[in-house]
Amino acid sequence: MIIVTRAGVSPDEIDHIRERVEALGLRTHISVGDRRTIIGCVGDEARLAEVPLLSITGVEAVHPVLKPYKLASREFSENETRIPFGRSEIGGDGFTVIAGPCSVEGLDMMRRTADRVGPAGAAGLRGGAFKPRTSPYSFRGLGEEGLKILARIRDETGLPVVTEVMDTRQAELVAGYADMLQIGARNMQNFALLTEVGRLHRPVLLKRGMSATIKDLLLAAEYVMSQGNMQVILCERGIRTFETATRNTFDLAAIPVLKRETHLPVFADPSHAGGVRDLVAPLSYAAAAAGADGLLVEVHPVPEEATSDGEQSLSLEEFDGLMTGLVPFLEAVGRVPGGAATAPPA
Amino acid sequence: MIIVTRAGVSPDEIDHIRERVEALGLRTHISVGDRRTIIGCVGDEARLAEVPLLSITGVEAVHPVLKPYKLASREFSENETRIPFGRSEIGGDGFTVIAGPCSVEGLDMMRRTADRVGPAGAAGLRGGAFKPRTSPYSFRGLGEEGLKILARIRDETGLPVVTEVMDTRQAELVAGYADMLQIGARNMQNFALLTEVGRLHRPVLLKRGMSATIKDLLLAAEYVMSQGNMQVILCERGIRTFETATRNTFDLAAIPVLKRETHLPVFADPSHAGGVRDLVAPLSYAAAAAGADGLLVEVHPVPEEATSDGEQSLSLEEFDGLMTGLVPFLEAVGRVPGGAATAPPA
Amino acid sequence: MIIVTRAGVSPDEIDHIRERVEALGLRTHISVGDRRTIIGCVGDEARLAEVPLLSITGVEAVHPVLKPYKLASREFSENETRIPFGRSEIGGDGFTVIAGPCSVEGLDMMRRTADRVGPAGAAGLRGGAFKPRTSPYSFRGLGEEGLKILARIRDETGLPVVTEVMDTRQAELVAGYADMLQIGARNMQNFALLTEVGRLHRPVLLKRGMSATIKDLLLAAEYVMSQGNMQVILCERGIRTFETATRNTFDLAAIPVLKRETHLPVFADPSHAGGVRDLVAPLSYAAAAAGADGLLVEVHPVPEEATSDGEQSLSLEEFDGLMTGLVPFLEAVGRVPGGAATAPPA
Amino acid sequence: MIIVTRAGVSPDEIDHIRERVEALGLRTHISVGDRRTIIGCVGDEARLAEVPLLSITGVEAVHPVLKPYKLASREFSENETRIPFGRSEIGGDGFTVIAGPCSVEGLDMMRRTADRVGPAGAAGLRGGAFKPRTSPYSFRGLGEEGLKILARIRDETGLPVVTEVMDTRQAELVAGYADMLQIGARNMQNFALLTEVGRLHRPVLLKRGMSATIKDLLLAAEYVMSQGNMQVILCERGIRTFETATRNTFDLAAIPVLKRETHLPVFADPSHAGGVRDLVAPLSYAAAAAGADGLLVEVHPVPEEATSDGEQSLSLEEFDGLMTGLVPFLEAVGRVPGGAATAPPA
Repeated sequence: MIIVTRAGVSPDEIDHIRERVEALGLRTHISVGDRRTIIGCVGDEARLAEVPLLSITGVEAVHPVLKPYKLASREFSENETRIPFGRSEIGGDGFTVIAGPCSVEGLDMMRRTADRVGPAGAAGLRGGAFKPRTSPYSFRGLGEEGLKILARIRDETGLPVVTEVMDTRQAELVAGYADMLQIGARNMQNFALLTEVGRLHRPVLLKRGMSATIKDLLLAAEYVMSQGNMQVILCERGIRTFETATRNTFDLAAIPVLKRETHLPVFADPSHAGGVRDLVAPLSYAAAAAGADGLLVEVHPVPEEATSDGEQSLSLEEFDGLMTGLVPFLEAVGRVPGGAATAPPA
Repeated sequence: MIIVTRAGVSPDEIDHIRERVEALGLRTHISVGDRRTIIGCVGDEARLAEVPLLSITGVEAVHPVLKPYKLASREFSENETRIPFGRSEIGGDGFTVIAGPCSVEGLDMMRRTADRVGPAGAAGLRGGAFKPRTSPYSFRGLGEEGLKILARIRDETGLPVVTEVMDTRQAELVAGYADMLQIGARNMQNFALLTEVGRLHRPVLLKRGMSATIKDLLLAAEYVMSQGNMQVILCERGIRTFETATRNTFDLAAIPVLKRETHLPVFADPSHAGGVRDLVAPLSYAAAAAGADGLLVEVHPVPEEATSDGEQSLSLEEFDGLMTGLVPFLEAVGRVPGGAATAPPA
Repeated sequence: MIIVTRAGVSPDEIDHIRERVEALGLRTHISVGDRRTIIGCVGDEARLAEVPLLSITGVEAVHPVLKPYKLASREFSENETRIPFGRSEIGGDGFTVIAGPCSVEGLDMMRRTADRVGPAGAAGLRGGAFKPRTSPYSFRGLGEEGLKILARIRDETGLPVVTEVMDTRQAELVAGYADMLQIGARNMQNFALLTEVGRLHRPVLLKRGMSATIKDLLLAAEYVMSQGNMQVILCERGIRTFETATRNTFDLAAIPVLKRETHLPVFADPSHAGGVRDLVAPLSYAAAAAGADGLLVEVHPVPEEATSDGEQSLSLEEFDGLMTGLVPFLEAVGRVPGGAATAPPA
Repeated sequence: MIIVTRAGVSPDEIDHIRERVEALGLRTHISVGDRRTIIGCVGDEARLAEVPLLSITGVEAVHPVLKPYKLASREFSENETRIPFGRSEIGGDGFTVIAGPCSVEGLDMMRRTADRVGPAGAAGLRGGAFKPRTSPYSFRGLGEEGLKILARIRDETGLPVVTEVMDTRQAELVAGYADMLQIGARNMQNFALLTEVGRLHRPVLLKRGMSATIKDLLLAAEYVMSQGNMQVILCERGIRTFETATRNTFDLAAIPVLKRETHLPVFADPSHAGGVRDLVAPLSYAAAAAGADGLLVEVHPVPEEATSDGEQSLSLEEFDGLMTGLVPFLEAVGRVPGGAATAPPA
């Protein structure tokens, strides 16, 4: 932590600041400048993070030196985290595509979807049973019935399933059916929920919040990891900006920044980022080119009849085209389509 | 709902769109332009909201005509909603200030705070027992012990207490102690939590999310209201933008826009909006001038020792100054300081 | 300037950084932490600002200590800047309202406007002769003919006139007619234009750019001032965010932040900030309450027939109402309506 | 144009709206709904664009049907625009990389740069002679001396040169030396400058403003084109958002959206978007994968000594690596590195 004083700070004020810092067991280095004084604080920065340094008289600015996340940081683990997922694994040299409809609408449409996306190269199936909807009057999912459909399709096809958990009370229930738990963008800072899924033994797909910085996203992962669950996948899905030509603004640079900052796998969700079907392919290719470990893609047998997010859902034919189109980009980045080749037998 | 077609749409495509709309029981009016066709849809727009119109071939744009919120809208209620709060009420001609520390840190500091802010004109006391913190390593509140302290101070002073609920599982517990339930900015779209507090008989102070539009905020209120709890207070507390000189960007215009759109009371939180103590007074005066019904202000007996948000907390003396400073602005807008004069006896 | 190294930086890398800094005449203080080293640089920070420190191996972060603006900063001048404007002055204890249409459309409408806004309390008249328009097909102003109309109305009424300059080639021409030069939001970082108006002897009304931080705005003022023209008025007019309920997001907190950072007068433009007529009054009252020195308000004799910005223009009657409505707020902040009482005779 | 009325609009108000529209030569179609009335306006929408419809009593919302840009739109030209550039051309099947330092600092460093980037595959050389700098105290370029250096290097190497024009008064001067004129992000809505370069016979590289929507960017291109200069290249370079981990937020989706909306070539500037050297390669690969026609990349012989933007400049070796790294991505999108194969001899 570095503390910068205001111009004209008095020696007594500097002493008071120094005492506050040293009382917490840190050492201080003081550089007296022409107008301002710099107080470098060496030691356990986490202790200082709790102190409202800016409210101390004479303090003008405070600059943290260390990252506020530990378990999620590159410095914690030299190796990339790999997460078993069905017959393959996420992370490493593979590239994992998880596909399916926004909402689980019934057994038939899920079966039709799974029967097509699996052979096309998807490593897992997605589908919402509990749906976060902006309006209370929108369709909010089939609930446990939806979870049962997902589990049945998994049993039939071998595709592991991913579904969202929205409520701490449902976490165990959902974990009983699903292979991976999704935390949606609107719940990225639902800290009670993060804590809860941190106690479960299920990988967590953590979507970036619409106004979350990259640091916020890593701190949300830290919540889950600090409870003991180290299987977290981060997912860039667009942030909210002034641009209205797309549903959200896909922050592509977040992918390489996250790969530099953390050992956790990084996914992209081109469907929510762009918000329309035509953008799914170019955003997917770009995400692969920028180093993503996988994609979360919305696919529906009849997009025009989807109960939610039909505008951004690929048809089954379009998904085939996406998977074919991805191949040269995956070759360019040296990745193996359909999950890591080095995956252990399930 | 108005549907605009792409240039060069075919008559068959227009027929298909029309059939989809009419099958839901709406009528259509078709205006054929030089390049595009406009299809006006008359009837129950809510049915159409579920249909992914943009995914239908030939559709270029869709413009809703009606507001997506009903219970929260001005059209639902001609009268301003008034909410009993201790010995006064929120809404109407009063101006309600709720003050207290970010976190309940102990009995003494809460008592010191209440003993000063009550006589200074605060109508209620705030304090967090369950704290949403960006880092899992920060202080996260005293939990139920904090709730007991709040209730005890309420009994001693008569000041009603407001505290945050973060988890569906805690909602009843918190409602057992608190006079008003706060939903924090990060949980504004935690739909499970909104639904849960909608089932309780406690007023809800709903803070705007950092990336929530005004429409999103009203839809979040609609979630609570659609469960039967009509006692919702909206709170502008700053949104996230590129500007870093303040913690958030205080969207002052949201206050008059909300007053135009809804019958619900509208508060401002100058502490979180500005993020530093010096901005609390000018932002408070401005909120009053723009028509707010009240304020949520952070106050701490010793801001420099606060376990959270000390930078933006007023000292007890500063709070006295704020309340004195507010008087001429409240007179200018014709409001009664300290809660509505017309309040019925509690 | 404070330099923070990466974890694992080598002694040679630290030496190299130190040498680069000392070669520019600054001294260094080095604090070795457990993982990172902090290098405090004492001396003329401006020299370091030109060096791409982040591109030096081993550097992880750089934190400036001093403000990048000098002439515009509070530290440069203890007194508030006051700017003569017609019969009164801007800054100090006065509150200056400048009103008029978006565009000068003709002599009659300007005369009708001036004849009404002057008696209502406006201290100056605004009107665009050269209009920046997002579309090349929109009305772009009367040009010099518009300037002549402004000058004639000034001569008739005694109201000083403000108009926008968009092109370095027009700066002298506009200064020949106008009492104050406006730099529009889209030209706030048109550095050639800032430099040009810095060479003229006319006060400059500098509007904040839609994506400009407060620091950017002060640096733009510094451009003008560094050429010798110290008569700059800053104007908050809303920034661009994700919120679409208003034309821009009025950053009210910018007003007190600017008043803290600079000695220059600070105005607000409630017309562009809100974008609709109904918001002009509440935003104006709030700006006054937050400490603004004046307002720039769009007024048109027949808003419905305005060639630009009619949606946000007040009618003449509405402007009367605004000026009356402002009085108690100005009393609350201890300001004199209609310009400073202490103004010297012109 | 579609006009939606407020609830409870009167027949007289509807008549007045209809008359205003029809007086401009458009026809109206009126759909009376349960609460609101929809007025579809058929005919020359441009005439209505000038009318402040929202200021007419009874109007609640206005939705344009047609795009406000014409010459820049896909509907104007079925063929992709191709722009001759040195020995190759921009647009079509080629992929054009323009590389060089932020500022022209001298003859030697420009020669060293050109001698390396040309053989590595760059089709053109960039370098600023007039530099827009946020602070008036920063290095602002060599001026005409810099232009002469650029021209001399072009003559030596055959590489066409691109440089920024910031001032209407310099436009002809710059055009006398440069092969392509760059309009910087901060001048994207400097309409006088857009008009001026629209009158010259030089291709224009138009960078997106930091707060410009995609529509704003196309309207800025329309300014240039409406003066007769149809040789415009659009350049995505990042927008301003709340994220501070990167200098700007690279709006990758703007690339495919622009390719859908316009026939003009679309470039990306990975240097300004990311702001640090390490992000240049992943952002470049992603831009190529998403369909960009070329890149603008900052390269400096000794980035650590650059007078501006050293943090984000590639060294000569790193640029070699970028060009090699790009090859498989260009193959994946079917593009020819180094400019279009179909280029006519210069």
